[in-house]
Amino acid sequence: MSSATSKTNAGNFFEDFFLGQVIEHATPRTVTEGDRALYGALYPTRFALPSSAEFAASVGLRPAPVEELIAFHIAFGKTVPDVSLNAVANLGYAELRFHEPVVPGDTLATRSEVIGLKQNSNGKSGVVYVRSTATNQRGEVALEWARWVMVHKRDHEAPAPETVLPDLAPSVAAADLHIPAGLDFLDYDFAAAGEPHRFDDYVVGERIDHVDGVTLTDPEHMMATRLWQNTAKVHFNAEARPDGRRLIYGGHIISMARALSFNGLANAQLIAAINAGAHTSPAFAGDTVYAWSEVLDKAEVAAPGVGALRLRLVATRGRDESMTLRGEDGKYAEGVLLDLDYWVFVPR
Amino acid sequence: MSSATSKTNAGNFFEDFFLGQVIEHATPRTVTEGDRALYGALYPTRFALPSSAEFAASVGLRPAPVEELIAFHIAFGKTVPDVSLNAVANLGYAELRFHEPVVPGDTLATRSEVIGLKQNSNGKSGVVYVRSTATNQRGEVALEWARWVMVHKRDHEAPAPETVLPDLAPSVAAADLHIPAGLDFLDYDFAAAGEPHRFDDYVVGERIDHVDGVTLTDPEHMMATRLWQNTAKVHFNAEARPDGRRLIYGGHIISMARALSFNGLANAQLIAAINAGAHTSPAFAGDTVYAWSEVLDKAEVAAPGVGALRLRLVATRGRDESMTLRGEDGKYAEGVLLDLDYWVFVPR
Amino acid sequence: MSSATSKTNAGNFFEDFFLGQVIEHATPRTVTEGDRALYGALYPTRFALPSSAEFAASVGLRPAPVEELIAFHIAFGKTVPDVSLNAVANLGYAELRFHEPVVPGDTLATRSEVIGLKQNSNGKSGVVYVRSTATNQRGEVALEWARWVMVHKRDHEAPAPETVLPDLAPSVAAADLHIPAGLDFLDYDFAAAGEPHRFDDYVVGERIDHVDGVTLTDPEHMMATRLWQNTAKVHFNAEARPDGRRLIYGGHIISMARALSFNGLANAQLIAAINAGAHTSPAFAGDTVYAWSEVLDKAEVAAPGVGALRLRLVATRGRDESMTLRGEDGKYAEGVLLDLDYWVFVPR
Repeated sequence: MSSATSKTNAGNFFEDFFLGQVIEHATPRTVTEGDRALYGALYPTRFALPSSAEFAASVGLRPAPVEELIAFHIAFGKTVPDVSLNAVANLGYAELRFHEPVVPGDTLATRSEVIGLKQNSNGKSGVVYVRSTATNQRGEVALEWARWVMVHKRDHEAPAPETVLPDLAPSVAAADLHIPAGLDFLDYDFAAAGEPHRFDDYVVGERIDHVDGVTLTDPEHMMATRLWQNTAKVHFNAEARPDGRRLIYGGHIISMARALSFNGLANAQLIAAINAGAHTSPAFAGDTVYAWSEVLDKAEVAAPGVGALRLRLVATRGRDESMTLRGEDGKYAEGVLLDLDYWVFVPR
Repeated sequence: MSSATSKTNAGNFFEDFFLGQVIEHATPRTVTEGDRALYGALYPTRFALPSSAEFAASVGLRPAPVEELIAFHIAFGKTVPDVSLNAVANLGYAELRFHEPVVPGDTLATRSEVIGLKQNSNGKSGVVYVRSTATNQRGEVALEWARWVMVHKRDHEAPAPETVLPDLAPSVAAADLHIPAGLDFLDYDFAAAGEPHRFDDYVVGERIDHVDGVTLTDPEHMMATRLWQNTAKVHFNAEARPDGRRLIYGGHIISMARALSFNGLANAQLIAAINAGAHTSPAFAGDTVYAWSEVLDKAEVAAPGVGALRLRLVATRGRDESMTLRGEDGKYAEGVLLDLDYWVFVPR
Repeated sequence: MSSATSKTNAGNFFEDFFLGQVIEHATPRTVTEGDRALYGALYPTRFALPSSAEFAASVGLRPAPVEELIAFHIAFGKTVPDVSLNAVANLGYAELRFHEPVVPGDTLATRSEVIGLKQNSNGKSGVVYVRSTATNQRGEVALEWARWVMVHKRDHEAPAPETVLPDLAPSVAAADLHIPAGLDFLDYDFAAAGEPHRFDDYVVGERIDHVDGVTLTDPEHMMATRLWQNTAKVHFNAEARPDGRRLIYGGHIISMARALSFNGLANAQLIAAINAGAHTSPAFAGDTVYAWSEVLDKAEVAAPGVGALRLRLVATRGRDESMTLRGEDGKYAEGVLLDLDYWVFVPR
């Protein structure tokens, strides 16, 4: 008879990773209209493009894509059992690019390659860098990104690997943004989209207070996180922490903030890339999340009527009308939950 | 640099409305099978027609419509950011008529026209009357209704508009009910529908205690309200009220009561019109909602085997077996949450 | 005027049942992709076959089936208003067999036949045995099962029926398992499925601790139970019990445990039959559910590359690493919520 848990997956520890290692993550996942509906029930999203098949067709996209973050969460969730089940912390993302929009019926699978390793000086953990790629049923890349996590060692005596740090860009170059085939904002319907603000109306340095707040609940974040097949225990199991609280998946905060950003950024219809992301403080049920944005950069892109904005999206616990990212000490201000740097496509 | 919130929508105030004003509301919305499933998860609905594509086809409707209230909530939700974001109170509905049933794949957009204005004597707010029309991607009317809301003034010194009160019918005339093309109840399957009661079995004045109760929770009403892209802050933000409670969207109570009414009205398969509706008391998480109905009127309609019942649907906090609508003082009895007057189609 | 509640269904009492009685249950239900998405939001399921249309096609199943338990819950829910609305307790299941997999677009209807009756010696209740069959829109059987429930008598003076006990098999014979048409595991993708364990790797008597836990919430179990149109009051109404708690539908625990069993049984892609099931203790919001499995039997089946495992699936409140089913006294150990005996198909 086998031992009791020999068949269960305990996840990888730091010493299980090696440079160049390729991991094919389990459970390909077909995206459906049910995902779109649930996303709309869980986040207050009102962007016209993923809401309306007619609007999507009017800008050259047919069938109607789902929100990019649905694809992101699904693709990311697949990596959790192999990469971050024993993570101490998710340290960052970089170079995330969306390719052709994901539509219902697409099946996503994710593969990761280990591109960097660095054992911590305490010998008890280390940082693993992976580059992950999600492909659809035709083998086309849907999105790709780099990520690094701090992972426990199983055996503190295991030897340290050679330190290799990958060369990651601080942001995706505007010229490298993938433009969905057929995207054309020349006949863009601003009334349907909800706001008149075009590319030229946004100024680098401008900050936008998105005003609205949403109070978080446990059932909602658990439903979202399960939908993405993310298995990290702390999100679901009140016995996993001494305080009996369930830590909310950082991606839940990303989606909440992105949806709240509609109010002021209604024309930011498509996310093109994520340059960097930091979950700066944990979130729990009962917290009320607000968001503000800062325009970091602007770029012309080679699609009719389309421009790109590079934005900082900040989620906060409680509203901060001063929109303060960092205190005098250079540390994130109290209440900042998320600092996300990303590119969107807007009408010119 | 723009000021911080110049791009966010603060909603319209009383003085922003003018007679004849037409507002094209944002975010057209494609209805999907995901909406049907979520509706079934959020409300205990068991009506055979929207539950079963086979049943729908057997009464002449193919593809299978979604519940009329899904279309209502979506169409209504679109008006909130423009009409009622600064509302003191939703005062009433009238003349709501459903046209051809909404099916998955339909995209709904809503337009409103201001048909009446009356400043309150306190000079701080006023009543705005709008007639709203939701159309599908083919430009066909899906539903239309009148609604009036009390809205704050931004500037109490702003001059009062001329008072214009629209002429609204106390109820939709039976002859004006729209009959879905092809509707035919001659081969109606009473076993599949769940009850034997036909048009002739219902008597004007009859009251039906629907018996069952549902205890409300915050995550459920927030998910529902988001699904309809309704943005009213009080439903989502526990910091919006001094007591930290989230006010439940009145439409959540309508859908809950309608679903509970299955028990005794299982054959009320389609809602044809809403004559009037009053949300008589706020509802919060923890309240247990029950419902009872009164038959107000009956009418023959020009479709094979089809009759129309005019019903009063009353939702209560706690069960009231006495089914008391109003006290001796003429005011709504304590615990009454909703008084809805509507028309349904039933088999003859 | 009719009396107040003459049209509402009070459910059947023990004396309403008679041997050979056939009940056509109400509300046929079309399964959709929305059900698949909601199931994935409510349960941490990661089985590749129902998750991925590509994986399903790769093992001969197209279109992609939904999880068998979706079909089970829907089919079972239909019987509740007629069979168990006045139940004291659900006593057991037997001989549950799944036939061809259910796919989105299928419409399920359920019929039950009374196959046994036994009044309790106290004269206040009795046990009703029914055999239920769910069929699709083509009249093909989707699943069938026997179930027995203890039901209140309306009138304690009503005469006892003749006692008839049906002959129910302790388990479905392996030779009677229905193999889905076309099922072929010869090209099974173990990497996509997530684990390498094949039929031959499982040993009779082996126990598997599925490790992960999920803390239950009221909104989630209510949404699930409503989705299946199960109307049992105790699940929804906090006023139905003196302690104000909502009893969680036993099927919610079955689905939660089945999903948790992925970790160690990732290749148990299809449920073929349920031999027996006991809900040994009630579950409530706040409980954290864990699961373990025991291999009870193995069988070869007549499909390429396919084997069958007979498993015991045990759900517990709190993790029991000792995986103890019963105490020295032969009674279920404290914390055991579910003891389910079922057959699955795995790759050889």
